[in-house]
Amino acid sequence: MKLTILFGGASFEHEISIVSAITLMQKLSNFNLNFIFCDIDHQFYLIDKKEMKAKTFSSGAYKKMSTLSLSQGAFNQKTMFSNTQYKDIILNLIHGADGEDGTIAALLDFYAIKYIGPRVSASVFSYDKRYTKWLCDAKNIKCVEYEILNSNEQKNITIDYPIIIKPARLGSSIGVSIVKNESELDYALDTAYEYDDNVVVEPFIDNVKEYNVAGYIADDEVKFSIIEEPQKEEFLDFEKKYMDFSRSESVLKADISAELEQKLKTTFAKVYRNMFEGSLIRCDFFVVNNEVLLNEINPIPGSMANYLFENFSDAIISLISSLPEPKSIKINYEYIHSINNAKGK
Amino acid sequence: MKLTILFGGASFEHEISIVSAITLMQKLSNFNLNFIFCDIDHQFYLIDKKEMKAKTFSSGAYKKMSTLSLSQGAFNQKTMFSNTQYKDIILNLIHGADGEDGTIAALLDFYAIKYIGPRVSASVFSYDKRYTKWLCDAKNIKCVEYEILNSNEQKNITIDYPIIIKPARLGSSIGVSIVKNESELDYALDTAYEYDDNVVVEPFIDNVKEYNVAGYIADDEVKFSIIEEPQKEEFLDFEKKYMDFSRSESVLKADISAELEQKLKTTFAKVYRNMFEGSLIRCDFFVVNNEVLLNEINPIPGSMANYLFENFSDAIISLISSLPEPKSIKINYEYIHSINNAKGK
Repeated sequence: MKLTILFGGASFEHEISIVSAITLMQKLSNFNLNFIFCDIDHQFYLIDKKEMKAKTFSSGAYKKMSTLSLSQGAFNQKTMFSNTQYKDIILNLIHGADGEDGTIAALLDFYAIKYIGPRVSASVFSYDKRYTKWLCDAKNIKCVEYEILNSNEQKNITIDYPIIIKPARLGSSIGVSIVKNESELDYALDTAYEYDDNVVVEPFIDNVKEYNVAGYIADDEVKFSIIEEPQKEEFLDFEKKYMDFSRSESVLKADISAELEQKLKTTFAKVYRNMFEGSLIRCDFFVVNNEVLLNEINPIPGSMANYLFENFSDAIISLISSLPEPKSIKINYEYIHSINNAKGK
Repeated sequence: MKLTILFGGASFEHEISIVSAITLMQKLSNFNLNFIFCDIDHQFYLIDKKEMKAKTFSSGAYKKMSTLSLSQGAFNQKTMFSNTQYKDIILNLIHGADGEDGTIAALLDFYAIKYIGPRVSASVFSYDKRYTKWLCDAKNIKCVEYEILNSNEQKNITIDYPIIIKPARLGSSIGVSIVKNESELDYALDTAYEYDDNVVVEPFIDNVKEYNVAGYIADDEVKFSIIEEPQKEEFLDFEKKYMDFSRSESVLKADISAELEQKLKTTFAKVYRNMFEGSLIRCDFFVVNNEVLLNEINPIPGSMANYLFENFSDAIISLISSLPEPKSIKINYEYIHSINNAKGK
């Protein structure tokens, strides 16, 4: 099975995307893989498999490799005398901006290249934590209560301390702070506003039960990973999460009741259906008073949450078989013709 | 003032985009304009100003003109020996799919080309009528009550007849039907499902008062057009709307109370702020029992609603002065460096 992994991107999560890609090279060793790197200047490079190690990127050595350009249906490697086309299915593994905000999805849609990853709308609703809340309201999915603050306006927070402050549009805990009392608020807001003009404020729930589930739809059926109860510190800081992106060892199934398992799966399916088709996502849930609350949607989870699947290769193969087809539209210029006829031109 | 008009697109509204572009050529005659056409195969062409007439496109004559490709900051016209770069600000005038669904926005964002038009999130919330409803709920904006139907599921409509059936993701009245009673329902649904798997059902409100307002933000202030009370038939069919896209004559200000004018403007500002920055949009409102309801957001209105502005050129110039700047992200590979150091590599 051929597959091209697209990684990097102009994103604060650029480096963890590199780590994810290296991890997947190992986990999908039975695939015929190509690697395309998007650098922070939005230039695409074809990366030699042998050079797929962190140093290639941190040292800038990748700049000596072939650049690629996009055309309908392909990435192109052009030389003076030839054009090699790369037309394989893309696995969009760019975390954060570019990959998860809809930019890469739109680019691949425009150039009619099939891909694993969230489509444009799905990206908008998962990348911006404000819109994830809107999605929950609209789909009747429970989530943690919240308030939105904007750097341009003064607004009082009515949620009781301790609270958690998150930039609206960043993942991997970047810019996130737990605020225990009002004296810590200004510093936490300044930190978050460095990354985004909008921040989401939520109550910080101590010792909350957390469960992660990944999955996708193939053959019109939701396929679930095992459910994991992630280990945690107070919350995962960036460096910790970073290491998390290189996870490849299988984890143990959470020890939960059949009833809770069903609730988590039902909520996952509600989030996924009619929105995330074509992608493998991980949903992170809280369970409070036996109620399942959606905490976060990761539409391109670190290392594709491979460690949650009993057979990750098979999962990717089955997802590939159910990817959305590019739409085709026919134009016959009948209106222009009829107007021209009416005008006698 | 230089400006490049981007029009066409792989959209059911491809033809009205051509009409819009021709109209703007006349309305912005004091600008130094270029024209880039995106054909239904997503190939870009530089169109000679003299050839900016409907026949150039309906006859296929445009295919003999120069093709353009994208690179960072520019559209490129390449010949064997030269590369001419077009770096002017783009006015995204692609109506419907591509232009209004976030695809072109993402493409221009990715290639760091400044543009007039909705950004990716704004596109998602205005293009899909379901998400416009979610936006209304979240921003506390009143709209017509609705139900969502999906072609894959059987669901009873609880809204009383007459109702109006709209494909979720099409503009210009394509696929829209008014259904007076249940006997007409199946045909109307079949028509709508031809265009989209999701349809929005609303009560059809006879003789409703309609008002259109366009505007944009410049210097952090909302600038409004005049408010128009559009003439209407039962509803505008595609051919009628099509002609509408070539409108260039100024219209009369609606004869409404100062209070209603204020309500319409306040609602417009609520829709626009923190979402549509960088674009000139037209909002179509209903007024029922003295209440303002949002009917539709047109983030790239036909011929840019030029006819609603007393001085359209000045409006475009002032919008250009306030366009969002492309973001820049710096990566220092500090995490990869620190991990490599820890590993002793």
